[in-house]
Amino acid sequence: MDVDALVAAVRNGDVRLHELEQHADADDAAAARRRLLAEETGAELETVGAYAFDAAVAEPNIENMFGAAQVPMGIVGPIAVDGGAVDGPAHLPLATTEGALLASVNRGCAAIRAAEGATARVLKNAMTRAPVFRVSDVAEASETAAWVREHVDRLAEVAESTTSHGELRGVTPYVVGDSVFFRFAYDTKDAMGMNMATIATEAACETIEAETPAELVALSGNLCSDKKPAAINSIEGRGRTVAADALIPREVVESYFGTTPEAIAEANTRKNLVGSAKAGALGFNAHVANTVAAAFLATGQDIAQVVEGSNAITTAETRDDGLYASLTIASLEVGTVGGGTKLPTQREALDIVGVRGGGDPPGSNADALAEIITTAALAGELSLLGALASNHLASAHEELGR
Amino acid sequence: MDVDALVAAVRNGDVRLHELEQHADADDAAAARRRLLAEETGAELETVGAYAFDAAVAEPNIENMFGAAQVPMGIVGPIAVDGGAVDGPAHLPLATTEGALLASVNRGCAAIRAAEGATARVLKNAMTRAPVFRVSDVAEASETAAWVREHVDRLAEVAESTTSHGELRGVTPYVVGDSVFFRFAYDTKDAMGMNMATIATEAACETIEAETPAELVALSGNLCSDKKPAAINSIEGRGRTVAADALIPREVVESYFGTTPEAIAEANTRKNLVGSAKAGALGFNAHVANTVAAAFLATGQDIAQVVEGSNAITTAETRDDGLYASLTIASLEVGTVGGGTKLPTQREALDIVGVRGGGDPPGSNADALAEIITTAALAGELSLLGALASNHLASAHEELGR
Amino acid sequence: MDVDALVAAVRNGDVRLHELEQHADADDAAAARRRLLAEETGAELETVGAYAFDAAVAEPNIENMFGAAQVPMGIVGPIAVDGGAVDGPAHLPLATTEGALLASVNRGCAAIRAAEGATARVLKNAMTRAPVFRVSDVAEASETAAWVREHVDRLAEVAESTTSHGELRGVTPYVVGDSVFFRFAYDTKDAMGMNMATIATEAACETIEAETPAELVALSGNLCSDKKPAAINSIEGRGRTVAADALIPREVVESYFGTTPEAIAEANTRKNLVGSAKAGALGFNAHVANTVAAAFLATGQDIAQVVEGSNAITTAETRDDGLYASLTIASLEVGTVGGGTKLPTQREALDIVGVRGGGDPPGSNADALAEIITTAALAGELSLLGALASNHLASAHEELGR
Amino acid sequence: MDVDALVAAVRNGDVRLHELEQHADADDAAAARRRLLAEETGAELETVGAYAFDAAVAEPNIENMFGAAQVPMGIVGPIAVDGGAVDGPAHLPLATTEGALLASVNRGCAAIRAAEGATARVLKNAMTRAPVFRVSDVAEASETAAWVREHVDRLAEVAESTTSHGELRGVTPYVVGDSVFFRFAYDTKDAMGMNMATIATEAACETIEAETPAELVALSGNLCSDKKPAAINSIEGRGRTVAADALIPREVVESYFGTTPEAIAEANTRKNLVGSAKAGALGFNAHVANTVAAAFLATGQDIAQVVEGSNAITTAETRDDGLYASLTIASLEVGTVGGGTKLPTQREALDIVGVRGGGDPPGSNADALAEIITTAALAGELSLLGALASNHLASAHEELGR
Repeated sequence: MDVDALVAAVRNGDVRLHELEQHADADDAAAARRRLLAEETGAELETVGAYAFDAAVAEPNIENMFGAAQVPMGIVGPIAVDGGAVDGPAHLPLATTEGALLASVNRGCAAIRAAEGATARVLKNAMTRAPVFRVSDVAEASETAAWVREHVDRLAEVAESTTSHGELRGVTPYVVGDSVFFRFAYDTKDAMGMNMATIATEAACETIEAETPAELVALSGNLCSDKKPAAINSIEGRGRTVAADALIPREVVESYFGTTPEAIAEANTRKNLVGSAKAGALGFNAHVANTVAAAFLATGQDIAQVVEGSNAITTAETRDDGLYASLTIASLEVGTVGGGTKLPTQREALDIVGVRGGGDPPGSNADALAEIITTAALAGELSLLGALASNHLASAHEELGR
Repeated sequence: MDVDALVAAVRNGDVRLHELEQHADADDAAAARRRLLAEETGAELETVGAYAFDAAVAEPNIENMFGAAQVPMGIVGPIAVDGGAVDGPAHLPLATTEGALLASVNRGCAAIRAAEGATARVLKNAMTRAPVFRVSDVAEASETAAWVREHVDRLAEVAESTTSHGELRGVTPYVVGDSVFFRFAYDTKDAMGMNMATIATEAACETIEAETPAELVALSGNLCSDKKPAAINSIEGRGRTVAADALIPREVVESYFGTTPEAIAEANTRKNLVGSAKAGALGFNAHVANTVAAAFLATGQDIAQVVEGSNAITTAETRDDGLYASLTIASLEVGTVGGGTKLPTQREALDIVGVRGGGDPPGSNADALAEIITTAALAGELSLLGALASNHLASAHEELGR
Repeated sequence: MDVDALVAAVRNGDVRLHELEQHADADDAAAARRRLLAEETGAELETVGAYAFDAAVAEPNIENMFGAAQVPMGIVGPIAVDGGAVDGPAHLPLATTEGALLASVNRGCAAIRAAEGATARVLKNAMTRAPVFRVSDVAEASETAAWVREHVDRLAEVAESTTSHGELRGVTPYVVGDSVFFRFAYDTKDAMGMNMATIATEAACETIEAETPAELVALSGNLCSDKKPAAINSIEGRGRTVAADALIPREVVESYFGTTPEAIAEANTRKNLVGSAKAGALGFNAHVANTVAAAFLATGQDIAQVVEGSNAITTAETRDDGLYASLTIASLEVGTVGGGTKLPTQREALDIVGVRGGGDPPGSNADALAEIITTAALAGELSLLGALASNHLASAHEELGR
Repeated sequence: MDVDALVAAVRNGDVRLHELEQHADADDAAAARRRLLAEETGAELETVGAYAFDAAVAEPNIENMFGAAQVPMGIVGPIAVDGGAVDGPAHLPLATTEGALLASVNRGCAAIRAAEGATARVLKNAMTRAPVFRVSDVAEASETAAWVREHVDRLAEVAESTTSHGELRGVTPYVVGDSVFFRFAYDTKDAMGMNMATIATEAACETIEAETPAELVALSGNLCSDKKPAAINSIEGRGRTVAADALIPREVVESYFGTTPEAIAEANTRKNLVGSAKAGALGFNAHVANTVAAAFLATGQDIAQVVEGSNAITTAETRDDGLYASLTIASLEVGTVGGGTKLPTQREALDIVGVRGGGDPPGSNADALAEIITTAALAGELSLLGALASNHLASAHEELGR
């Protein structure tokens, strides 16, 4: 059917809105939906319809597609970072609608370059999935947990049979009354790995159900914990746990931020440590989520996982007459294959970073992306702390001038 | 300068990459950046450059722009919701790369329609900003807090002088040793309001500095708390606190989700309540962040605020031989004016919802958007819980069939 | 009956163990229980039976009494503190089994005296009780919350009619789906006030049930939150929110703690701030619970409320060539009348502090006790941080000596 | 010196108050302190001085002793529990000043007996200590963590050389910027084990300092986390992780609690799960801390560790036409040797439970005590939930009666 026919078919009730792709190609289906939506709501949908890719490409990523959101993308860098997987200057595209964000990150990047660059490391790598089982009582809970502890190798075999890349790194049992949770942790290489982990865990669950009295209630029991703010992630990590730091000489702090190492350290302590403590926070930072969100959007990551990406601690202290600052993100979930990374603008963004597709060795591209995002976020932290501290200094100066 | 000249000027060091807009229009500046980036990184940047809007429009939203990210957008609905600001069926565009998300939300929407629709209410509305001050000791902290408590009216006058729309609703002091935090809460009407709140608070801070011995250290002291997972938001709210619920008859549960009210209630308790409790969570839900993130991206919200949008509790219980389910999001920060809402695809998306621009009365458009997003997220919760529960039932059935 | 008769009566099944007080005085009842327990378990119960008070005095405090626990009590002080309710040196009895605790606190007290004393303030005073109600849906939840917000004066009248001392300071509604919580906050003067708050709230609940469609489910809905670790207490406070601080000159730090202000500040930042952040803590301190628990036990407080007493933040920074340190306890629940304060050893302990019974003005005795405990706990923090830091220095010195 | 001489010596400044034990026996020293304190404060200290033990016995437990606190002790039980380490009815002494607590726990115990008893299991056993080290940057942090991961056996050897009983079970590294934490976990058998863990960890730290560039900053870096509310304990456990549960037939619920399984389950969900979720809690229970505190006080445990003992989740659901209820305490730190367990009344209390001293096999006495306390706390949960639910029913009945 052509677009007219599709529109008519929906109006007549012959075809349902989400079934259009069964009767036409994806672009025509989207066009028909735009026309129907425009009519129903009075909205004009020109720019939404002016997307620059073949709608068929996006079929694994969305249903009921009628167009695309377009978000401006800018560039930050060069990011001078000595990482475990990346070495040397990198560029990072950020897509955002938050004015001043890129300017801020770029100012931080410039300061890091003017110092001797940043250091970054992936400290841990584990995508998790934690099903919940029902047992009859706490005795059975104890036995089931014991059985799993003793049969991790067997579960690994079953779980890994579902995937060509993933490796089961461990299973941690948690018991609450008659609910038993098993947190499966995988190395998923260059994939973010949520689907891989889910499928592998599903297979392992069948074995657990077959061999123990436990019955599966839900394949995710929230000890994973995916896309929810949860201390288990900020403590134990999920995806990549990544740290980046830099030592910024006093004169660089002064010229780039117009303030002193002492003022930045004080702002960090009162705001990011003490303020966050009082707020009951799991994230002790200034605005890490801004950089993470913008990088995720540009490079095809799952933007709902910005939630975990904000589980981050920023530290700042004076050292060697300069400023030492670090950022540690506990649970940064990134991939360079699969998911949104296959879409055209996202692929191009990954090409700019130089990490599209599987790395050599496997996992190294995702490691590099994680280190670069974390270093960019550190730059953003430095810049915002510098701005806060220099405003304070500015008003202090005005005061003195009275 | 034309694009060639811009590229040459950057290569020669005559112009810096972020200054291109001073020498050309925004689209040419972006084109020059694409060419420079392509050269330096080898990336092809065709789709990134094929954006469908005038780059000048995006100038308030980004720096160093070289193109745009394009994310497929689909439609969910009709959403049958009786809200405080919205009544009747609404459509919501979602932009995402997470396959199956829209199908899942739509299944939930269908079940809600097959029941008698959902109910939604904005319970609270307060955009916050919390500066941190330094005092000399706890006696001074106590006095400063007392002064502010007694002069809220005066601070309101000062704060509100900076804005045509915002109203200061209250100021709550928090003291930790020689750090004093004041959490300013504003009604920012149809704007998300972070900028409005910051500017108004800055003015109030000057009064506090003038009238008390306290010295401002940082305009944000993290008790706000913006874009960080923090209990102060999940408890006290930030932006809109919104709840939606629905009573789904047993036969609707069975036909739409292939499971029972009891199985969904059990999955919710073990996963979303008990599992989240054990995880040390601030979000007790299944995947609210997915719907929030996709709606934020489509409608021009700040996607880093998905962090706060995941501070949500889902409940499910059997009632009247059906399933009662609710979703309460503590801190959903949305606006229909300002920020990313002015961009073309985002404006069109807001037009589909019918909430673009300022509402009548002011605030009602943002209220409506908040209620619609929350109801869609409730639909997503129902659908995922149904899927988890029915898988379990499915395997139970297989077992019985052996 | 005499003790022999009581024992025989229980053995014969004529009297149940917990009913002995109906047939004899409290001391004989306790003696009979000891004899029965000794027989059944083989335990000798001499010291348990050698309590130094009239068992009848303890009847409001315990059932099934058979003796008393005896815990050694020592003294710390003089505590040099300039408070809002206390001025000048105070002594504080501590009952504990934790060797070195009193020595540690006393060392801190000595350092505070060698400096110019500590400053302390009660910043907030609110005993809370938060019942939970069931409503039919979120619309009703919204209406019920609105009704309560509008009728706080009427609820205050009802609540205060049940108490001669307590004053209702405010009611904060929280909604989660079809559950509505109201956090009632009272000034309970010199009483810890949990019972007073419960009784007053129960009366207010009847009004709410009569005037709104909400039905009470539980008089405590855990947003109080009594004797549970909860961010609502660490953020908003419960009982007294108290802060104490001191500025310790460098030479005092060196002579009393054998270390430097810098080393203590570093230990505090890495341990109490960064370490606690990573631990997902609500308490950012070294061992405040030790001092609070020992003071609670000595002075007749509710020792289960040590849980809330550990919601405390310790800060330490170099200032004016010395060490500035502060301790802020968010939720210290103390009283000088009622509960365990009426027992003999506890009364005597309160007499040592000089705060037994109601204060003039009402509340001032409990305020003073709160300020003294907090200052003693600050002394304990200083001392432990000093010990940790000097061990580090010690080994650093050994290293240098090699 | 006799008491008169001691008093005079202190007055003259010849002897300091905390040095009296160097010049007299412990009881005379205590008597002298009482006389001095009485004089200075006007307090009468008769009952405080009438303690029933040899003060010398308490010397490892306290400094500056001048008497003892006496807290009434009562008995609960028999507790019908089928545990991993305990089987059959047990009695538990509770020392408290909280009227109605023992009656409440006993009511729950009776209901459990009227059902078929409770089940209990120790699920995990690990006393932890987590020192914090300083490194130069995140690269060094990564290397240090890797070194420790690879040398756990060597660290175990060093750590275990300091103790006759303790076994190192594992070491988990956590990195935040230039701070590296290692959480050492030990099986400390029948000792609570904090001291054992500290000494063993100190030895291991020397090895880490010798073999890596890391420098120790503090022997405790708060990831332990001792006596602070912290998610790391509620998630991963500390001391014993223990669970107890019971299935209570409907008629038992009705006759003992005057309510229904449904009403108790509802109260538990709205209060302990949903209410705690909204409160930002780490403890999802009604009043576990009450039972834990009273048992700790009676049996010589460290009462400051009630903080961790409140990290507990209570569940309740209808099952088989009855009520299934469970309590899981994540971090219950108990011992039957060492610390306060050596004091006379505490020894006698442990004899009543039948768990004084080292168990056979080692650890079994502490396991049994943990299971008994948890079951008693479960009884307390049942009883309080029953009371809350029946009040509600009661008023519902009154309403109907109108």
